[in-house]
Amino acid sequence: MFLSSLVQATPSKIVFLIIDGLGGLPHPKSGRTELETAHTPNLDSLAAQGSLGLTQPVGPGITPGSAPGHLALFGYDPVELDIGRGVMEALGVDFPMLKGDVAARGNFCTVDDQGLISDRRAGRIATEKNIELCQLLSPISLKGGEVYIKPLKEHRFVAVFRGHGLMGEVSDSDPQKAGLPPLPVTSLSTQSEATARLANAFIAQARAKLAAHSPANMVLLRGFSQLPIIPSLKERFQLHGVAIASYPMYRGLAKLMGLETIACGSDMAEAFDSLASAFSNHNFFFLHIKEADLAGEDGDFDLKVKTIEEVDRHLPRLTALKPEVIVVTGDHSTPAVLKGHSWHPVPLLMSSAWCRPQGEVKFGEAACARGELGLLPATQVMPLAMAHALKLGKYGA
Amino acid sequence: MFLSSLVQATPSKIVFLIIDGLGGLPHPKSGRTELETAHTPNLDSLAAQGSLGLTQPVGPGITPGSAPGHLALFGYDPVELDIGRGVMEALGVDFPMLKGDVAARGNFCTVDDQGLISDRRAGRIATEKNIELCQLLSPISLKGGEVYIKPLKEHRFVAVFRGHGLMGEVSDSDPQKAGLPPLPVTSLSTQSEATARLANAFIAQARAKLAAHSPANMVLLRGFSQLPIIPSLKERFQLHGVAIASYPMYRGLAKLMGLETIACGSDMAEAFDSLASAFSNHNFFFLHIKEADLAGEDGDFDLKVKTIEEVDRHLPRLTALKPEVIVVTGDHSTPAVLKGHSWHPVPLLMSSAWCRPQGEVKFGEAACARGELGLLPATQVMPLAMAHALKLGKYGA
Repeated sequence: MFLSSLVQATPSKIVFLIIDGLGGLPHPKSGRTELETAHTPNLDSLAAQGSLGLTQPVGPGITPGSAPGHLALFGYDPVELDIGRGVMEALGVDFPMLKGDVAARGNFCTVDDQGLISDRRAGRIATEKNIELCQLLSPISLKGGEVYIKPLKEHRFVAVFRGHGLMGEVSDSDPQKAGLPPLPVTSLSTQSEATARLANAFIAQARAKLAAHSPANMVLLRGFSQLPIIPSLKERFQLHGVAIASYPMYRGLAKLMGLETIACGSDMAEAFDSLASAFSNHNFFFLHIKEADLAGEDGDFDLKVKTIEEVDRHLPRLTALKPEVIVVTGDHSTPAVLKGHSWHPVPLLMSSAWCRPQGEVKFGEAACARGELGLLPATQVMPLAMAHALKLGKYGA
Repeated sequence: MFLSSLVQATPSKIVFLIIDGLGGLPHPKSGRTELETAHTPNLDSLAAQGSLGLTQPVGPGITPGSAPGHLALFGYDPVELDIGRGVMEALGVDFPMLKGDVAARGNFCTVDDQGLISDRRAGRIATEKNIELCQLLSPISLKGGEVYIKPLKEHRFVAVFRGHGLMGEVSDSDPQKAGLPPLPVTSLSTQSEATARLANAFIAQARAKLAAHSPANMVLLRGFSQLPIIPSLKERFQLHGVAIASYPMYRGLAKLMGLETIACGSDMAEAFDSLASAFSNHNFFFLHIKEADLAGEDGDFDLKVKTIEEVDRHLPRLTALKPEVIVVTGDHSTPAVLKGHSWHPVPLLMSSAWCRPQGEVKFGEAACARGELGLLPATQVMPLAMAHALKLGKYGA
């Protein structure tokens, strides 16, 4: 890879402070976004000395999920590297997937006397019931492999198949529509026949065990997938990195990229503690703040503002460590007025001794739209951070 | 296609108000472009609530014709999708081409006693004479097919060949140089031999019929081509669209993209009438205003300013319909000082409830250069419009 050939090892350190769902839209009354509303003296002062821009995580108009949003920030093409639904769910519960495992997203569902699906979600059973049913299914034993069942929320679970020579190219059993029977899982490549056999054997046993548990009397599986094999950040950039993230999915993504993960509490202060204690032993840090996205998803403009202000209050603990490069950005926008992820470009702040300083500024969407880094694909954040850390050599004579 | 997989059908409506040749260059005296000179209170107010940017129709430095300029705006790659000259001319006279038809651009020309071309344009005969000559050629009957002849302006016409199994890969009869004889049309692929036979038979009969009509005593054909088969806007974006355009070529392009077309007068007020009457039955509207381009081509700075002001006066009739998304832009720039199309990027205004508002602004090139949408390929306008209409779902988990 072109970029990797330019990498030079240096002791300089890079911190990615990722505020999930950072970008927003104006409050109808004030005309200012969440970030523009927040009182952020520390971020503003970092911005004044740094460079600003706006990132597009996947492309213009594309609303990214959390996985593609993060993959892009770490320099992976989020369209080329499409992580399957099953793998995402397994990462989300911190299931220790091995290479070769095949994960699928499962639903408990209801089938009628004719075996036709009457409810794909089994009336959205309570999570407690789900946990019970997963315990019922867990002892299922298969010829030629094993299956691991982990409950998610309501009617959702994840199933991970383990065995020799499994591949993930099999069809869903979920027809995505009520009134039809569950479909047999079929292999879409000759190497995936063993996976189809395991999955169908599991489904048959699950049906028998669940018969008396209506409305959750059957299962549907979809999104069969394996861990993608991707070059690690160490291989690509000689980064010895650590992820500080309280949500399992982000820790899973971090492991995929070859980062160490530190267990940390859900408290923001603890995350900054973890950063400080890991600081001397690594040269790359991914600090993930989930709360801004949650507030945005809930449509809680004020809570998102408060979360950003809390990050700002902790920021001096990060700057005191004097990393050579600090990147503050988000994996996507989550405007409270939209109550969900959106396609809007995401504020980006790059801080290093080698920036062309922005000058006095309120860190926010409007300032970033006028910033020197311009409107850039999020995949360019990593090479820019590497350059500002003086970790990229000259190209050509 | 990646984007199509994200499309979700919603009742929201998108209006593309395309002011042909919108972009300009400063008047030498005022230093302001046509758009910056025009008094446009309604566009300015739309811009203040919307997002601005500048589009590149084909690429930096490339001056687009009308077809590539429009194709890009609707999300088609204008370099990959090269529409032949013959097809463009047929669309331009509203000829109802069928799949399999092969169209060619024709010239009346002058040949001398030795059969060498002395004038490729037959002294630019009057259009009235052209119409007469086309009537003379129309009865020509061919073995194995038919030919339709339609006059254009001065010495130009279009010939459309219809028959079984025709393909467009044949060479021009026009050697593009005086002093040479017209060339035989030769097939460049085995499937195109029937086309070459029809074309040569037509040329031989035309030469005989025109012998006494010097200077228009011969014909030259070039740009043989067939209708490209492209996925419609309905297939790609689930858009049920309508085109309101007074010029045949734009209606032809619209039909290619699967839009319905509404016949409308050449008057701008009638175009806005048509929009209002079609509004309830569609979810996508392409309203084409040709006059700005004509004024630019004529080098008439003031007339281009007046045309833009006229659009602005009609704008409240569009906004009153309350479409979820309004896009105001051009297919290319036509600066009056250049008297022709140019490569300069084109002002873009995106208006929706989900924009990060630009704030108070005079809609024009300078404001657009500072806009949040940045400098973007025109092919990105469509995904952005779809996103702002909430017609694109999330990518990835």
